[in-house]
Amino acid sequence: MDYEGFFRSEIDALRDEGEYRVFANLERHVGAFPRATRRRDGAAQGANDDRHEVTVWCSNDYLGMGQNAEVRAAMVDAIETCGAGAGGTRNISGTNVHHVALEAELADLHGKESALLFTSGYVSNWAALGTLGSRLPGCVILSDALNHASMIEGMRHSRADKRIWKHNDPEDLRRHLAALDPARPKVVAFESVYSMDGDIAPIAEILDVAEEFGAMTYLDEVHAVGLYGPRGGGVAEREGLMDRLTVIEGTLGKAFGVMGGYIAASTALCDWVRSYASGFIFTTSLPPAVAAGACASIRHLKGSDAERMRQRAMVALLRRRLDQMGIPHLPNPSHIVPVMVKDPVKCKMISDILLDDHGIYVQPINYPTVPRGTERLRFTPSPLHTEADVEHLVQSLHALWSQCALSRAVA
Amino acid sequence: MDYEGFFRSEIDALRDEGEYRVFANLERHVGAFPRATRRRDGAAQGANDDRHEVTVWCSNDYLGMGQNAEVRAAMVDAIETCGAGAGGTRNISGTNVHHVALEAELADLHGKESALLFTSGYVSNWAALGTLGSRLPGCVILSDALNHASMIEGMRHSRADKRIWKHNDPEDLRRHLAALDPARPKVVAFESVYSMDGDIAPIAEILDVAEEFGAMTYLDEVHAVGLYGPRGGGVAEREGLMDRLTVIEGTLGKAFGVMGGYIAASTALCDWVRSYASGFIFTTSLPPAVAAGACASIRHLKGSDAERMRQRAMVALLRRRLDQMGIPHLPNPSHIVPVMVKDPVKCKMISDILLDDHGIYVQPINYPTVPRGTERLRFTPSPLHTEADVEHLVQSLHALWSQCALSRAVA
Ligand SMILES: Cc1ncc(COP(=O)(O)O)c(C=O)c1O
Ligand SMILES: Cc1ncc(COP(=O)(O)O)c(C=O)c1O
Repeated sequence: MDYEGFFRSEIDALRDEGEYRVFANLERHVGAFPRATRRRDGAAQGANDDRHEVTVWCSNDYLGMGQNAEVRAAMVDAIETCGAGAGGTRNISGTNVHHVALEAELADLHGKESALLFTSGYVSNWAALGTLGSRLPGCVILSDALNHASMIEGMRHSRADKRIWKHNDPEDLRRHLAALDPARPKVVAFESVYSMDGDIAPIAEILDVAEEFGAMTYLDEVHAVGLYGPRGGGVAEREGLMDRLTVIEGTLGKAFGVMGGYIAASTALCDWVRSYASGFIFTTSLPPAVAAGACASIRHLKGSDAERMRQRAMVALLRRRLDQMGIPHLPNPSHIVPVMVKDPVKCKMISDILLDDHGIYVQPINYPTVPRGTERLRFTPSPLHTEADVEHLVQSLHALWSQCALSRAVA
Repeated sequence: MDYEGFFRSEIDALRDEGEYRVFANLERHVGAFPRATRRRDGAAQGANDDRHEVTVWCSNDYLGMGQNAEVRAAMVDAIETCGAGAGGTRNISGTNVHHVALEAELADLHGKESALLFTSGYVSNWAALGTLGSRLPGCVILSDALNHASMIEGMRHSRADKRIWKHNDPEDLRRHLAALDPARPKVVAFESVYSMDGDIAPIAEILDVAEEFGAMTYLDEVHAVGLYGPRGGGVAEREGLMDRLTVIEGTLGKAFGVMGGYIAASTALCDWVRSYASGFIFTTSLPPAVAAGACASIRHLKGSDAERMRQRAMVALLRRRLDQMGIPHLPNPSHIVPVMVKDPVKCKMISDILLDDHGIYVQPINYPTVPRGTERLRFTPSPLHTEADVEHLVQSLHALWSQCALSRAVA
């Protein structure tokens, strides 16, 4: 077997399909978010000629908390007092006061008895669903058809029976639940805000159905925590539904602006996952500074609505201006503004022109992140974008839409 | 199904078996490593009465790089200039100059064309082996019997055929390889330093066998990077074998003192894993500060042998004193000093007494981290432990060994 040849030919195939990814090399600047310096591929660090300023339009640091002064101060303080890393797994010398404080903060955020930290949102989904699916005897997981890769991999890993119900369709969920043995343990797994279309699950209806059939519920609020609800507890907080959910899962890497993931649930459930999940046990815990920064961010957003309000205003403004210019975007009730291109090559071309000629950075979203034929530009307006930023974006898209003969929305 | 009751009864079973884990809540102090403040379970933050000073004897921050001034300065600088988190996945706005620089530093460390960063060593093993196993058509993974949980989960996830060969036994590996179809792709997966026994793989012999049968090789150097070889490239560097390995995997969370994981390999292989591994693609990338800190740590340890030399001296001193006191420990050629207790309840009891009465923190290592009946205390002397620290530890163990009627080594 010619291993190198195999890897090369698979990469070539990606290139041919327009699916080969080139990462933009960016440097964000504290005090200047959403501005960043982009270094062109291959440009050596320190070389001045191949860098230029861009406005980032696709960050998941949705509220710009990554430059928040309290968050930075908490991180710097933890580095200066506790050092760089945790130095061990949670069990073997790697539990720090900052982890303990953060878990308490997260339990409080979601009105749950306990919370359990993981190194990322990905690992929290993979490990929690993987452990539930493999260790609840005879478990069936009922999964929304559009669940995130991390949930899918967790379910796959568990080898539990799986039923896929139609996206955001409680009636289809009901049909699946009704067909199952009432005695079997069941987990209904879904998200609140789906990140690529920006649609929001009918959480109350899903809970009604799940409760009727005695199923546990597992809600991924990764794209909602910090953003919805009076204290940033997510869509379930906004709708007063947190106490009906068995598990709420979230990330510290998007609206909270740092890194890490968690589940919030009963003490018994968290303690059980803590005791059995390989992906929790056998890995170095988060640096104290990361935990401290996330804690500061959560506390800030529990008490402050200003970022959420301003973000909503910018989302509304972008939508209104796109409508006025006839640029089609998916309507949805969230903060995510997907502009559909539906062709991987065009999608990449548009984003390249936006980047090179207009100083606008928006990553083309292609397969496997979204299904083929639904390629898009996904804009995430933040409280730090200005009205002028929106206008520059809309005018640039307008110019490109004419240039590339892309279809307009019917006004 | 009574979910809560199920979780509670499983937790109770762990308690009955002496396998329930209580995490020590520690606060390390920059400038005072390996000293830390321990807060007793449940003690509120800020409460002064329930904390006491301990010496940490089981950290995997093997060289104390977590308090290194260059590492901290690099992290603080990145926070002040780039902010807290990365703000996205590597593909969607989350690639930073610090990631790019770190990948170059890692490729150089291992003499490979490229390196690829993951959020942890766990995720790097899981994602890389999971992707190799599932996407190399007809792949067989040949796994050392004592491989780490993260590798096992990656292989399990891939659903590739697996052969387990006897720990550190190239002849057994040969028997397995000889029995396989020569045309099938094969991956030989093993570690250099095994963290619980501290033994080291016969890498050259394993490579001889793997090469004879045209198998790829995948070496986990998690407990060796930073520690062995003239530049801290690991055991394979020390033995001049890096170029013969297909993939070298490592962590940034142990000797490098921060957090994160990686593989180093050919550009084609890294690019392929980058393009296909779900655990790489669908997760927020490491905070710039974490990447910057790790980069500073690697650079420091490439140029400085002082930490490694002093660590070795302290390891040798601890071993010599244990021998003199007749306290049995596993002989091995690494920096890990396992003192065998072989009983989970006694193991926990001893470590509790060490902690409460002697100010010595060493976590009892029980199942599932090690097989039942091989429970142990695992000491990791660092360059920051003093001769007096070693003496205090040895005298404390001596007192306990008499008190608890534990067996002595025959001198
Ligand atoms: C729905 C969803 N869940 C989980 C994750 C993973 O979270 P993290 O980035 O913290 O790994 C993501 C995105 O990254 C996501 O979109
Ligand atoms: C052999 C081995 N590989 C991988 C890992 C995982 O590395 P990390 O702690 O960076 O997740 C560990 C320990 O945590 C380990 O012992």
